[in-house]
Amino acid sequence: MGSPGTGVGWGLLDYKTEKYVMTRNWRVGALQRLLQLGVVVYVVGWALLTKKGYQEQDLDPQVSVITKLKGVSMTRIEELGNRLWDVADFVKPPQGENVFFLVTNFLATPGQVQGRCPEHPSIPLANCWADQDCPEGETGTHSHGIKTGQCIVFNGTHRTCEIRGWCPVESGAVPVYLSNALDTQDPTYFKLCRYDPHSSPACPVFRIGDLVAAAGGVFEDLALLGGAVGVHVRWDCDLDSRGADCRPQYSFQLQERSYNFRTATHWWESSGVEARSLLKLYGIRFDILVTGRAGKFGLIPTLISLGTGAAWLGVITFLCDLLLLYVDGEAHFYWRTKYEEAKAPKRTARPEQTELAPAPPRPAVQGP
Amino acid sequence: MGSPGTGVGWGLLDYKTEKYVMTRNWRVGALQRLLQLGVVVYVVGWALLTKKGYQEQDLDPQVSVITKLKGVSMTRIEELGNRLWDVADFVKPPQGENVFFLVTNFLATPGQVQGRCPEHPSIPLANCWADQDCPEGETGTHSHGIKTGQCIVFNGTHRTCEIRGWCPVESGAVPVYLSNALDTQDPTYFKLCRYDPHSSPACPVFRIGDLVAAAGGVFEDLALLGGAVGVHVRWDCDLDSRGADCRPQYSFQLQERSYNFRTATHWWESSGVEARSLLKLYGIRFDILVTGRAGKFGLIPTLISLGTGAAWLGVITFLCDLLLLYVDGEAHFYWRTKYEEAKAPKRTARPEQTELAPAPPRPAVQGP
Amino acid sequence: MGSPGTGVGWGLLDYKTEKYVMTRNWRVGALQRLLQLGVVVYVVGWALLTKKGYQEQDLDPQVSVITKLKGVSMTRIEELGNRLWDVADFVKPPQGENVFFLVTNFLATPGQVQGRCPEHPSIPLANCWADQDCPEGETGTHSHGIKTGQCIVFNGTHRTCEIRGWCPVESGAVPVYLSNALDTQDPTYFKLCRYDPHSSPACPVFRIGDLVAAAGGVFEDLALLGGAVGVHVRWDCDLDSRGADCRPQYSFQLQERSYNFRTATHWWESSGVEARSLLKLYGIRFDILVTGRAGKFGLIPTLISLGTGAAWLGVITFLCDLLLLYVDGEAHFYWRTKYEEAKAPKRTARPEQTELAPAPPRPAVQGP
Repeated sequence: MGSPGTGVGWGLLDYKTEKYVMTRNWRVGALQRLLQLGVVVYVVGWALLTKKGYQEQDLDPQVSVITKLKGVSMTRIEELGNRLWDVADFVKPPQGENVFFLVTNFLATPGQVQGRCPEHPSIPLANCWADQDCPEGETGTHSHGIKTGQCIVFNGTHRTCEIRGWCPVESGAVPVYLSNALDTQDPTYFKLCRYDPHSSPACPVFRIGDLVAAAGGVFEDLALLGGAVGVHVRWDCDLDSRGADCRPQYSFQLQERSYNFRTATHWWESSGVEARSLLKLYGIRFDILVTGRAGKFGLIPTLISLGTGAAWLGVITFLCDLLLLYVDGEAHFYWRTKYEEAKAPKRTARPEQTELAPAPPRPAVQGP
Repeated sequence: MGSPGTGVGWGLLDYKTEKYVMTRNWRVGALQRLLQLGVVVYVVGWALLTKKGYQEQDLDPQVSVITKLKGVSMTRIEELGNRLWDVADFVKPPQGENVFFLVTNFLATPGQVQGRCPEHPSIPLANCWADQDCPEGETGTHSHGIKTGQCIVFNGTHRTCEIRGWCPVESGAVPVYLSNALDTQDPTYFKLCRYDPHSSPACPVFRIGDLVAAAGGVFEDLALLGGAVGVHVRWDCDLDSRGADCRPQYSFQLQERSYNFRTATHWWESSGVEARSLLKLYGIRFDILVTGRAGKFGLIPTLISLGTGAAWLGVITFLCDLLLLYVDGEAHFYWRTKYEEAKAPKRTARPEQTELAPAPPRPAVQGP
Repeated sequence: MGSPGTGVGWGLLDYKTEKYVMTRNWRVGALQRLLQLGVVVYVVGWALLTKKGYQEQDLDPQVSVITKLKGVSMTRIEELGNRLWDVADFVKPPQGENVFFLVTNFLATPGQVQGRCPEHPSIPLANCWADQDCPEGETGTHSHGIKTGQCIVFNGTHRTCEIRGWCPVESGAVPVYLSNALDTQDPTYFKLCRYDPHSSPACPVFRIGDLVAAAGGVFEDLALLGGAVGVHVRWDCDLDSRGADCRPQYSFQLQERSYNFRTATHWWESSGVEARSLLKLYGIRFDILVTGRAGKFGLIPTLISLGTGAAWLGVITFLCDLLLLYVDGEAHFYWRTKYEEAKAPKRTARPEQTELAPAPPRPAVQGP
């Protein structure tokens, strides 16, 4: 009647429940309850609520960064006299990308044309006494041109190798200093708001000085030799809530304490000669990095979090069983009670079997 | 002999299986089967197949975006006469990056040099009656220069403060309109294909007009005052399949309804004076955002999905037990059957223990 | 006494442990142990240690890429004579972004002004015999301007349609070749280090030639017609270790075998006419792609990995039960032992119930 075959048949709708041995062991019992409580607290309190384990995270934000600078500044340069800088001058590239460069200082070499001229003495291997110091065709990474083989006089003081290249060469002079960058007395611009880490942490209007300071730099130092500042924008959106907490967080980081690059504008003079003005631009490079995560309720992560908790409840039972069976004072008794022996009647005469079980068959639990 | 110690010894290879109480309770049984079926359907059908829970996802695509524009257009500008625009004129930056700007309109101020000239009347605080209206050194965010303290006549009509800066200042005139942008009668260019959301959704060749329209904008409006359009390219690659479904999906979004920036080209005039031509460029900024995910079979996510399902089967049993033991009509009987009492023979005289177990010890299972 | 109600009461701190049937079945037992060992090995060895399943992964690196090129090179161009290229000439954009373009070849059209001139014969539909071959206002994607309707002579040889646009038009000549790009005899520059896939795989200083070669390209070919090279930088950081293994890995990929774009510099000639010099720049576009993952110990992933393993142990028991109950030789006996029948005393007269249970009721627990 209880044969497997028929068992499958009418067993399908029968409910089978594990048989439990109820031990009056309050110590292990209390421990079990405690651990179970811990699992529930962990799953509900920590994994689900705190860590938002019920959400699927979208980690790749699709963001476009549009930047726009405002303001003018005045420089006092010996050779060029007073010079005013506006947006068209001090932002490169002009088209408001997420990486832009604010020119704060520069070294100009106007009106260069291709030709032959003495190399600058500051360049390695540029100084010479005789032509044989200047092997023809030699060039170096920092050199301004290719040596012609001549050793000539550089503005009366030094003798340097003649080169073929853009002439005259750039002077290695210490760049002049841009005095007051982006100061503005116009309060009307910040009509919208103005970023402040405490009062208005979500305002996207920054004052360059504040921004550099927040990055741990001193604007005057960076303005002199340039630098690189990273602006991190972090979005952490909880799409399940009213979207109230989907605001950016800004953080600033000073990446480089020196930054410059060279650029040139070319034109053709009326004589048909191509000329260029070379600019070595020092300034602050701003790199706007946007990261974000958007969380939304998802069935699968929720079930995984809960299911994992359920699995841990099983682990707890296993651990408590170990305590009960091998540590507890009455372990011997509990062990006999938990494990009910069942030896197949037709015993197979197998050596390891017999040596494994030398004991005469014992009922699991003796009656009194 | 049945002591825990030896129990461990020969118990290691003995198979211990839970003892079950088989209740002929078809109601709970049917419920259990139903829930189990639900778990299996969820795990296999939803988590594994639909959500591809057997794949590990790679969410950071390594993509390079190369853009190239083609076409010419003609503008009719009063002061400049007919002017033809080609790629070298209307794309900035020219080197095909993922963010590029299509010039559709501009305001030119050719031949500026550093000097002194009246500020434009449209600038705040520019208009004046007397010199004291123009505090020397004052500057504003939108001003074109730094005030010299004089109040002078601006082209015969207004009186505005004199400034030191790039002169003459830019006129705030309403920009002229670029009539026919990027129209082409040349069908041979689209020899490859041409994007169409329905017929050819994967073709990477776009007509600007279609693209703006797909973003929900009107090209004529955007061309006048500029704008920003986001082009989202989504890759969703299933590396387990033949790679057939690893094609991009395009979507377009109108981000800004006004966009412009200023840029200038500088040169040195024969007189040695630095001159620049200032351009205020209106146009459409295209920002190409690429996101993607690549899924590939992974052992760990598969086992996590399945394992979680297994854990849920345990939860179901627990729930059904609750029903059986506390809700069912014969709950009392089932409860006594499921829980076999086992009190340690050597009873510890602990008060709560004794009052908890007033019953005489009953053997769990009688021998025949 | 054992009633559910009171059972709940004093059962709360009682420890209930499953009752097991211990079968002396070493075959299924060994199989179970084997599978359990497999799960442990998988969880600990593979999921945890190898795959770092105990870490939470941060997949979006916040990286700024700063690039800087060094070196000069000399070209021999017929019309322009010897010409030296330095950083200000051959890198666009100059401000060291993650996408930059190294000019290796170019086609210059200096001194263009807006006007009327014959179209270049290489343009489609440019050649003509009479004016009616040149419909006024027609333009094509590749054309340099808009046709005026005249058919005129193009430098003595061809007859092409006259266009209105930037004149003279760009010649479609095969571009000249940039001989020695970025060769440097200066060993002092690489004082820091120099990238080599074997000796110094983490050095961020690259020689363009090596870089192109590593991408599978030949520099001389790419230099002629341009190309695009992707530089992948992979960070794989294990923040739990001493940070020793948080070094970048570089890989290179040749994306395009041809790459060029047009750019122009504009200026106003003394006569007030706007002029530009058009440059069609061939070169190598470098696209630096940074991806990375940072792993740090996290409680939740660890518990998920372990919990999943625990769930699998349950699955193993289930499978072994199937073996024991339906495959094993003594399945019949084991089945009767495992499942202890419990029929509710007060039987509900339900047909399928009765036919399902023909066996005489056996009480689960005997009274003494």
